[in-house]
Amino acid sequence: MVDITQKQSTYRTAIAQAVIKVSSMVTIDAIKKGTVPKGDVFSMSKAAGFLGVKKTADLLPDCHPLPVEHCAIDYEINGLDITVKVMVKTFYKTGVEVEAMHGASVVALNMYDMLKPIDKGVEIHHIKLLKKTGGKSDIENT
Amino acid sequence: MVDITQKQSTYRTAIAQAVIKVSSMVTIDAIKKGTVPKGDVFSMSKAAGFLGVKKTADLLPDCHPLPVEHCAIDYEINGLDITVKVMVKTFYKTGVEVEAMHGASVVALNMYDMLKPIDKGVEIHHIKLLKKTGGKSDIENT
Amino acid sequence: MVDITQKQSTYRTAIAQAVIKVSSMVTIDAIKKGTVPKGDVFSMSKAAGFLGVKKTADLLPDCHPLPVEHCAIDYEINGLDITVKVMVKTFYKTGVEVEAMHGASVVALNMYDMLKPIDKGVEIHHIKLLKKTGGKSDIENT
Amino acid sequence: MVDITQKQSTYRTAIAQAVIKVSSMVTIDAIKKGTVPKGDVFSMSKAAGFLGVKKTADLLPDCHPLPVEHCAIDYEINGLDITVKVMVKTFYKTGVEVEAMHGASVVALNMYDMLKPIDKGVEIHHIKLLKKTGGKSDIENT
Amino acid sequence: MVDITQKQSTYRTAIAQAVIKVSSMVTIDAIKKGTVPKGDVFSMSKAAGFLGVKKTADLLPDCHPLPVEHCAIDYEINGLDITVKVMVKTFYKTGVEVEAMHGASVVALNMYDMLKPIDKGVEIHHIKLLKKTGGKSDIENT
Amino acid sequence: MVDITQKQSTYRTAIAQAVIKVSSMVTIDAIKKGTVPKGDVFSMSKAAGFLGVKKTADLLPDCHPLPVEHCAIDYEINGLDITVKVMVKTFYKTGVEVEAMHGASVVALNMYDMLKPIDKGVEIHHIKLLKKTGGKSDIENT
Repeated sequence: MVDITQKQSTYRTAIAQAVIKVSSMVTIDAIKKGTVPKGDVFSMSKAAGFLGVKKTADLLPDCHPLPVEHCAIDYEINGLDITVKVMVKTFYKTGVEVEAMHGASVVALNMYDMLKPIDKGVEIHHIKLLKKTGGKSDIENT
Repeated sequence: MVDITQKQSTYRTAIAQAVIKVSSMVTIDAIKKGTVPKGDVFSMSKAAGFLGVKKTADLLPDCHPLPVEHCAIDYEINGLDITVKVMVKTFYKTGVEVEAMHGASVVALNMYDMLKPIDKGVEIHHIKLLKKTGGKSDIENT
Repeated sequence: MVDITQKQSTYRTAIAQAVIKVSSMVTIDAIKKGTVPKGDVFSMSKAAGFLGVKKTADLLPDCHPLPVEHCAIDYEINGLDITVKVMVKTFYKTGVEVEAMHGASVVALNMYDMLKPIDKGVEIHHIKLLKKTGGKSDIENT
Repeated sequence: MVDITQKQSTYRTAIAQAVIKVSSMVTIDAIKKGTVPKGDVFSMSKAAGFLGVKKTADLLPDCHPLPVEHCAIDYEINGLDITVKVMVKTFYKTGVEVEAMHGASVVALNMYDMLKPIDKGVEIHHIKLLKKTGGKSDIENT
Repeated sequence: MVDITQKQSTYRTAIAQAVIKVSSMVTIDAIKKGTVPKGDVFSMSKAAGFLGVKKTADLLPDCHPLPVEHCAIDYEINGLDITVKVMVKTFYKTGVEVEAMHGASVVALNMYDMLKPIDKGVEIHHIKLLKKTGGKSDIENT
Repeated sequence: MVDITQKQSTYRTAIAQAVIKVSSMVTIDAIKKGTVPKGDVFSMSKAAGFLGVKKTADLLPDCHPLPVEHCAIDYEINGLDITVKVMVKTFYKTGVEVEAMHGASVVALNMYDMLKPIDKGVEIHHIKLLKKTGGKSDIENT
């Protein structure tokens, strides 16, 4: 684990994305109308994603535990694609990229898990970091 | 959470895959030679993946806790692509697809986390279920 | 921890209840209309409750880990009172009363946490077991 | 999750309470004499409560992880009522009310779990915040 | 992780031991009289040990999650030595040796943690498996 | 739990040690050559140890959660003895001795778990604090 004892806390943000592709507009409609049998897909997946962000250091050995000071999760529907964006912020000595990516991955997996009974063709695409600020260098992936 | 109290335990397997793309052969060489500063990438990510598989029900609200009775993680290098395959087996009332997919996602994230200091361009592609057996229907994605 | 190695698995159910009292109909309206700033209170608290049920043995030392095979959470609004009912089922050697009660407690706490910014007067009343079946004796509290 | 990156750390305290009602003085005597078969009820429930306080953010999605810097748990017996008070302190950007309330709930549930074999009539009443200091406003419930 | 899907569940027990050596009889007296400032050392360490046993598979990657169906923790004082014995039982496909040893280790560490303020010389000796039954071979270490 | 709200954060380090004794040079060779069936013993045990360090406050009730800011794990082979050293660093209000000792214990247990199939005679000796700096007094055990 990298030694960060001598680093200064600075403001850090990261936004990660996952794309979930469903196989039919029937699935999209069920999500929008709240008729998926397991419940409200976006709200429950947001809950899972917040917990996923907070538990990243419980799963990745080399990852420093850190105070997650903000997390927001948004969804955008585009045809059969649902894009999840997870933003994480902290004021600490190390960045929150992996936390944002783990959050995006958990949201996507939870959507898969909730939609599985009504759609066998759900796929999870590109989990990637869109942007980070703070630390040695900012990154913007487009 | 689906009611599985009246279901019979049967033999279940699932194989999930994640593809990690690094940006240079220098990274591949560092992994193979064991010179990545954070340690042995494949072994440590396997450890993370096993834990990720076991903790799936801790993160996904609707997911039943279940006895993970086998887990194996393999890596295949193909140019700049590293394909991770996570196989999970159980003898229980419900399947292990989501567990295998969460394991693949955690392995990929751990590789990203360990490689980040030497390669800023690592990307995580397609986390998907390759195959499942047991339960109502077998699935094979090719 | 009680020795249950020689017991037979049987079908077990438990229903626990918590009552949350808010201080104004404005709060009830915000919940119903989905305008609480932190998100959909019932769905996110259901997610928290499912996790609370599953993690009971992680918190209570003497409590056996067990396969939670069904969980359902319902809400009923009655004036300023919101009654949460958590049903848990398993097919195992020991009962799920404490799991249902922990679930009810976590749902109530999560509602408190989400409503706090808009209502300073939320109170959590009576967390109690309503009913259990299976094991040495059935219980029904009315 | 509320964005607290720009807030200042301040001294925060919270005291929460739960009331456990047992059904007979025999139960009270067993607790006092340390003859409850599962062990010392007050000490083991204190252990559970400390862990419950520390794991609050693991269960409530919107709750910020924070450094629990003090926790004390006291018991007061009054006839058949046992009042548990959980005090939590931190020096951080957000308060510890929910942590104290979750601690009180876990202590009460653990007492219920340990007493169940000798008293079928244990009930958990009023889990509530008694007092908080720090943050925008102090609260005192009497 | 070893594949145990095809194994039969059998009755398994394991007893592990840790020896904690304190530096003075004053410490032993404080433990016996219950005057250690952090609380009742044996009861709180028993609580920690139960949780340690149950969480073994959360920490050791290759370790199968299993239903811990009995756990008992005993202490024996002999001069400055305190011997902790942790017995674990299950009816499952794999043994509980590592669970018993992790439990013994957590009890010993918790005693160390609670005694540290009054005794700087506490040492943890020999964590070892004393006995196991069930599985391919019984073991008895003397 | 000791009240640390009024303490200043200072630089803290701790080094703990565990000694694992295997029963034959065949085991040592298998570790060195990477032919242990469960995988690379040193890398996977390092992963387990990092997680063990980070989860100490999840298991020990009285232990403060703290930001683990550095962790390093080293192995030294001496005949049949393998000495594990776990160094932990933080910049916080309380020390990391127990974290380092829990890490050493988890590394030792994971080695035991991975080696069990090829060596029935593995023993875990002396888990002890070698050194700490920061806080009221430095300690050096030789």
